[in-house]
Amino acid sequence: MIQVYTGNGRGKTSAALGLILRMAGAGGKVCLIQFMKKGDYSEIKALKKYWRSQVALFQFGNGNFVFKGEIREEDKKEAGKGLKTAEKALKSKKYDLIVLDEINMAVYFKLIGKKEVLKLLSRWGNKKEIILTGRRAPREFIKIADLVTEMKEIKHPFKKNIRAKKGIDY
Amino acid sequence: MIQVYTGNGRGKTSAALGLILRMAGAGGKVCLIQFMKKGDYSEIKALKKYWRSQVALFQFGNGNFVFKGEIREEDKKEAGKGLKTAEKALKSKKYDLIVLDEINMAVYFKLIGKKEVLKLLSRWGNKKEIILTGRRAPREFIKIADLVTEMKEIKHPFKKNIRAKKGIDY
Repeated sequence: MIQVYTGNGRGKTSAALGLILRMAGAGGKVCLIQFMKKGDYSEIKALKKYWRSQVALFQFGNGNFVFKGEIREEDKKEAGKGLKTAEKALKSKKYDLIVLDEINMAVYFKLIGKKEVLKLLSRWGNKKEIILTGRRAPREFIKIADLVTEMKEIKHPFKKNIRAKKGIDY
Repeated sequence: MIQVYTGNGRGKTSAALGLILRMAGAGGKVCLIQFMKKGDYSEIKALKKYWRSQVALFQFGNGNFVFKGEIREEDKKEAGKGLKTAEKALKSKKYDLIVLDEINMAVYFKLIGKKEVLKLLSRWGNKKEIILTGRRAPREFIKIADLVTEMKEIKHPFKKNIRAKKGIDY
């Protein structure tokens, strides 16, 4: 089954993390692959602290990815490695759930090819539990998915100049 | 700060769970109060397994709440206890994050009073991190909140007759 969490509102990665916690609580094994992200965010720390034996973590990003009108080769390279890791995780029998965090945006920025991702999804979507997150999910991902939620921003505090807080925002 | 996760799509409680994991990873303390829910769901098992010292759990529900056109006194009583517990949690200095799971629906079903919840929110919203989840958030909650995401269902597999799976759905 393929789940997609997209839209401009908050809660996409958080929802995936909640589902990771649920799967871990059920005794299952998870592979979390984060695109365009790097760093020991609080949620990563939490997973590392207690769930190492159940949750495998991979990050593919060069610190803060900022799109400046042109794709950097290093960002493409990292995202490409992420996709390879996803393929390996899908092929292995190890995981009950595979989360591809921010993969929608990695495709949107053309760091990885949409077709390559679609190939993986159509091959494994019926056999594996796969979660895709990120704004701007391509139409084709939504079409192939079984469950799609759009997180729609109704209100966001950063627009009111409230600063990001540790434990809440990262 | 008050966050609201509402809408008919999947991911509201999951997003709250992800945020609980983040807060726990940051070393913070959380109080999770679930309305109209009772049971050792996988995510509850996960929180109990490792996070007892950081995440306090309270459930207020009589097994499966099913609305049959009339509110049962026992459901009102349980939800009322939930609200009391929320008040205590807000007043105590113990928690960095207080999650009121499904409180929107508890208000929608008139198990608890909207005004009583609003009173708590207006008193504590500036001092505490509060998350409210559940479909059909009252307009007044959205108005008082700092961050609101609507989870919009684009596709849902239960409508295709796929059965709920342990670790994925509960």
